[in-house]
Amino acid sequence: MSYNTFGHMLRVTTFGESHGPAIGCVVDGCPPGIRLTPQDIQFYLDRRRPGQSRFTTQRREPDEVKILSGVFEDDRTEGPLTTGAPICLLIDNVDQRSKDYSDIRDKFRPGHADFTYVAKYGFRDYRGGGRSSARETAARVAAGAVARKIISDVVIRGALVQMGPHRINRENWDWDQVDANPFFTPDKDAVPLFESFLDGIRKNGSSCGAVIEVVASGVPAELGAPIYGKLDQELAAAMMGINAVKGVEIGAGFAAAALSGEENGDEIRMADGKVKFLSNNAGGILGGISSGQDIIVRFAVKPTSSILIPRRTITAQGEDTDISTKGRHDPCVGIRAVPVGEAMMACVLGDHYLRHRGQMG
Amino acid sequence: MSYNTFGHMLRVTTFGESHGPAIGCVVDGCPPGIRLTPQDIQFYLDRRRPGQSRFTTQRREPDEVKILSGVFEDDRTEGPLTTGAPICLLIDNVDQRSKDYSDIRDKFRPGHADFTYVAKYGFRDYRGGGRSSARETAARVAAGAVARKIISDVVIRGALVQMGPHRINRENWDWDQVDANPFFTPDKDAVPLFESFLDGIRKNGSSCGAVIEVVASGVPAELGAPIYGKLDQELAAAMMGINAVKGVEIGAGFAAAALSGEENGDEIRMADGKVKFLSNNAGGILGGISSGQDIIVRFAVKPTSSILIPRRTITAQGEDTDISTKGRHDPCVGIRAVPVGEAMMACVLGDHYLRHRGQMG
Amino acid sequence: MSYNTFGHMLRVTTFGESHGPAIGCVVDGCPPGIRLTPQDIQFYLDRRRPGQSRFTTQRREPDEVKILSGVFEDDRTEGPLTTGAPICLLIDNVDQRSKDYSDIRDKFRPGHADFTYVAKYGFRDYRGGGRSSARETAARVAAGAVARKIISDVVIRGALVQMGPHRINRENWDWDQVDANPFFTPDKDAVPLFESFLDGIRKNGSSCGAVIEVVASGVPAELGAPIYGKLDQELAAAMMGINAVKGVEIGAGFAAAALSGEENGDEIRMADGKVKFLSNNAGGILGGISSGQDIIVRFAVKPTSSILIPRRTITAQGEDTDISTKGRHDPCVGIRAVPVGEAMMACVLGDHYLRHRGQMG
Amino acid sequence: MSYNTFGHMLRVTTFGESHGPAIGCVVDGCPPGIRLTPQDIQFYLDRRRPGQSRFTTQRREPDEVKILSGVFEDDRTEGPLTTGAPICLLIDNVDQRSKDYSDIRDKFRPGHADFTYVAKYGFRDYRGGGRSSARETAARVAAGAVARKIISDVVIRGALVQMGPHRINRENWDWDQVDANPFFTPDKDAVPLFESFLDGIRKNGSSCGAVIEVVASGVPAELGAPIYGKLDQELAAAMMGINAVKGVEIGAGFAAAALSGEENGDEIRMADGKVKFLSNNAGGILGGISSGQDIIVRFAVKPTSSILIPRRTITAQGEDTDISTKGRHDPCVGIRAVPVGEAMMACVLGDHYLRHRGQMG
Repeated sequence: MSYNTFGHMLRVTTFGESHGPAIGCVVDGCPPGIRLTPQDIQFYLDRRRPGQSRFTTQRREPDEVKILSGVFEDDRTEGPLTTGAPICLLIDNVDQRSKDYSDIRDKFRPGHADFTYVAKYGFRDYRGGGRSSARETAARVAAGAVARKIISDVVIRGALVQMGPHRINRENWDWDQVDANPFFTPDKDAVPLFESFLDGIRKNGSSCGAVIEVVASGVPAELGAPIYGKLDQELAAAMMGINAVKGVEIGAGFAAAALSGEENGDEIRMADGKVKFLSNNAGGILGGISSGQDIIVRFAVKPTSSILIPRRTITAQGEDTDISTKGRHDPCVGIRAVPVGEAMMACVLGDHYLRHRGQMG
Repeated sequence: MSYNTFGHMLRVTTFGESHGPAIGCVVDGCPPGIRLTPQDIQFYLDRRRPGQSRFTTQRREPDEVKILSGVFEDDRTEGPLTTGAPICLLIDNVDQRSKDYSDIRDKFRPGHADFTYVAKYGFRDYRGGGRSSARETAARVAAGAVARKIISDVVIRGALVQMGPHRINRENWDWDQVDANPFFTPDKDAVPLFESFLDGIRKNGSSCGAVIEVVASGVPAELGAPIYGKLDQELAAAMMGINAVKGVEIGAGFAAAALSGEENGDEIRMADGKVKFLSNNAGGILGGISSGQDIIVRFAVKPTSSILIPRRTITAQGEDTDISTKGRHDPCVGIRAVPVGEAMMACVLGDHYLRHRGQMG
Repeated sequence: MSYNTFGHMLRVTTFGESHGPAIGCVVDGCPPGIRLTPQDIQFYLDRRRPGQSRFTTQRREPDEVKILSGVFEDDRTEGPLTTGAPICLLIDNVDQRSKDYSDIRDKFRPGHADFTYVAKYGFRDYRGGGRSSARETAARVAAGAVARKIISDVVIRGALVQMGPHRINRENWDWDQVDANPFFTPDKDAVPLFESFLDGIRKNGSSCGAVIEVVASGVPAELGAPIYGKLDQELAAAMMGINAVKGVEIGAGFAAAALSGEENGDEIRMADGKVKFLSNNAGGILGGISSGQDIIVRFAVKPTSSILIPRRTITAQGEDTDISTKGRHDPCVGIRAVPVGEAMMACVLGDHYLRHRGQMG
Repeated sequence: MSYNTFGHMLRVTTFGESHGPAIGCVVDGCPPGIRLTPQDIQFYLDRRRPGQSRFTTQRREPDEVKILSGVFEDDRTEGPLTTGAPICLLIDNVDQRSKDYSDIRDKFRPGHADFTYVAKYGFRDYRGGGRSSARETAARVAAGAVARKIISDVVIRGALVQMGPHRINRENWDWDQVDANPFFTPDKDAVPLFESFLDGIRKNGSSCGAVIEVVASGVPAELGAPIYGKLDQELAAAMMGINAVKGVEIGAGFAAAALSGEENGDEIRMADGKVKFLSNNAGGILGGISSGQDIIVRFAVKPTSSILIPRRTITAQGEDTDISTKGRHDPCVGIRAVPVGEAMMACVLGDHYLRHRGQMG
């Protein structure tokens, strides 16, 4: 019953609302003896942090993480080490700007969870989206930083490959570009286009979606499990569970449906004594188990639902009305989904790494 | 650690290999007092059963289900009733045609799990694909039939909406057509095209992929949970966990990335005292919780990997070789994925129905 | 939600009723490459099998196990090997003697689950106790046989140490005696007493309880986990979950409450370069983790509730009545609990073995 | 994989070490709309809080709880209400007296988890016992306070019924006495004996054990589940998982082994149109399901392992040595186990309440 927990051997439980005192997570099952400092985690939180360019929300959150438990340091250890006990990571909410909520408290914002939360729970914490705020993803990023430590040989990188209708040119793909622009995009040539496109979106009070690709390199051919513990299945859940994600695909993904069997199945050859696949339509996963190739996941993020353009909706009392959502919102929430997607990949792989070791030794 | 189990309150555990004595499942958590006969289950198994047209594998399996436990009948009950105890459903394997496996036992078929099973487990049951055979999905369909009984007000229907590169015309959508053609397609006009396309594929010894859409109608606005129990997340896992599936999307799915915020967010109005959404880009799920609209999931099935066209591969001993996979295979395994997708939808909704009732009363 | 499943990495799901067609279990998570034959399992089932002496029920069940899945054999393996896939074990019910159930179907037998099943589920499968029959424990014994294979260095032995009010003399303890008498007792001198005591019980149409001790030797100092994965906690659950068990203790158990701190805490010394505890009040578990000493668990089994002596009860319709339970019942159901307790110990240790390996490598 | 989580629909995850910045828990699955203030929780924490008499440790911890998430209040709610989101409860560690740990860091205290933590994890957080400190139980008590709110019709009370070798006279049982003495004992006449006994123990630098009884009244006949979700099984796990507990029994418990069938099985009669059991050897649970009678659990707590009396042990480097554990310790840790046992009972019942509602409606 994992309402707020995911993972099996590496379990992440998150808590906290947008405008409560803090958000955070408990990471359980981490092996002992791993060096873990707040800085290790902060690095990834900073990548996700809002307010770093004009293209993300202007909410100012330092997102400073505290490690409350699960690490130990004395004069014999070199720095703090995980102990095998649960690691609680806490991030205080700082910039809960006081605000007049009278509008959104009684109106259901289209595209948001307002209506369904009330339908399910009877009422909702409407301050900044409450539990459904994208702020919860900071806890995922923190957990992902721990997971990366467990699978330190694996390199996990994410990139924005489509903004609104504009796809990058994959031939320009350069991982080094990803952290050199405010969009986490690997195509340098796309940057000016994205800038002007997004500036236009912002000026119109509108928003746009995005497609994110996350790649894990260096995963050995063995992680995952058949049937209901499939690596792709759990990656699909992990990514689809990120706020605003509406689609997930592995490798060739939806395009595979249009391929013939001989186009799709990745042929194999030996090369220098090693197994070499001649293509990677499988996205690095066969039968739910990693093949040793890059694991490639893409997910689609819908446009931010909070927009200035007035929309038709109803009140909690069942009256027709309009709503225009003011406030500090990401015009393209997909941008900051890049580090979140990386973190989810790390958590899923870290979990499967431990699970594999358990069953197989 | 759900290697072979899925669900939380309604838990399905499957077992069995393609060429062992039987396959089956245990459905745990079913409420008591539900009328359940083998015929209730057989109806759905028959829809998935191979050998019903020239477009599916010619393996002849009656797929006759036995209920081994969890139901009770005496002269006071009207037929067999579930008791609340685990329901074991068993399907004997009948047509395990004796065969020379010398070819595939030592060669890794491209696109199959042969390589990864050996990489992980050290060896594999190569007879008919062993555990990774699509035959395992019969157990899912059987479980889905039980799940449908739990949520009997919900109508779950699946349809093939793309075969290879050919998409149906959605304006022709007619649910009544789905069971009137061998492709489970709702577009009558697409049938001749699909027939000739698939005949060509078969003649070439090739295969093709497909896209399947599953729709659940009548789901109240309340199922699901935020964050890691999101209904869309669990549907994504359920569908991505079906053999050969490479992509999953909800509602507008990947297309949502190209929409603007005002195009995407489904506006709301009151109509006859009820909440009415003016579109359904969300696919019936907001914030992980059902909105009362139709729940719409699509998934992409890759082309069958077993094809006659010779492919480059290696042997288990690490030598380059070629393989041409003979035998009885579906040229488009996506066709028979339709009832499987329906069953997974039923299991996820049945599970969430019980979970919701637990938390909310 | 483990109604009918236990374990985490080694998961056992059982199904079946006393008078249905079969009972069985699915063992999931077993490592691959372990030699497993039906005979390996049958050995333990035969120890639990009823009808082997006049001191157990005369129901004649061969309890013959079939392995339906999860093993593979060809001309390269030496016998059948586990594959890592779920292992379904099936045991047909053979001796469901046709019987007039008119008495027990409408009366709640004192000490039985009749009343609570109806209170919870609204009705019940009253044939032979249905799901609550001790017959379910055969499935546990079968699963335990698989678990023993995983931790093949560990020796697990159970013994009856008290029958009714009569305790054995622990100074007579001889493991070799356990299988040499119909009571699984290690005290040869207690056998005549137990015989005459139990014959008297049977003649009176009464029944008696027992205390069982299960010992695991050869467990390395590392299995288990602190807090909610404590080895003793999961052993307590495993043993308390056996039908008719009313108490569980580890090591000194309840007697520890009366000891002083200096009597209770097991002192430690080095001996031949190894850690040596000078006593074992802890029962081999400290802080939830095995210490390398023998793991010692005792559990109390209440007297069989089905007795000939008439008892006051009520009907399902809420009328006072009496009941005298005829049929084939164990006068001391604790006897056959010995192999069941061993099996539960094996399953818990096997699970923790895999879990430890997962977290620690 | 519940290393630090327990429960199924009501899930409690705890974190924190004795001498870290804080301890706490996340309670997930709580229904929405329940009024929950810090004071509701503080009441129970204060009962468990150390330093309230000379008979418990003199560590001064205010144990002040903060609710970090999962509740919401505005001018329309009457006080803070649970929202259905995870509730994080945080308790700062205040009195981590700086101390010379040179002695215990390298010596394994007999009866403690020092040796096994190092055997498993390679090293340990030795400050105040780290994760294995009884301080962790404060988080359980906090969670239990939430659980009580869910099953507000159930009255859960605990009592100390044996201290060292001294049992109370059950005929003196008076629940009102429990909070009127420093031992949580219901037998007023036992208080002077316990006082002088425990004063003697303290003067000798020794410690003693205890037996605690927890009773839940008002539980309807329906909670629990057969086989592996048995209420008694989960209570056994919950109680055995409390630090220092070595035995658990339900109802007549171990004494049931010495009873005859006719003495043990609780007879039933109708009384005023209601079902009335004529005794309660079952402890309120039949077949794993509550019968409507009081649920009665007893557990044995071993003597505190930290004692002044020198004990033989070894160092982490494998040398024989002696240790005398100074510091602030409870001479009878069983006393403060009373509110902890109550909390565990509340959590298990709360969980089963939700689970029952899920399956049964």
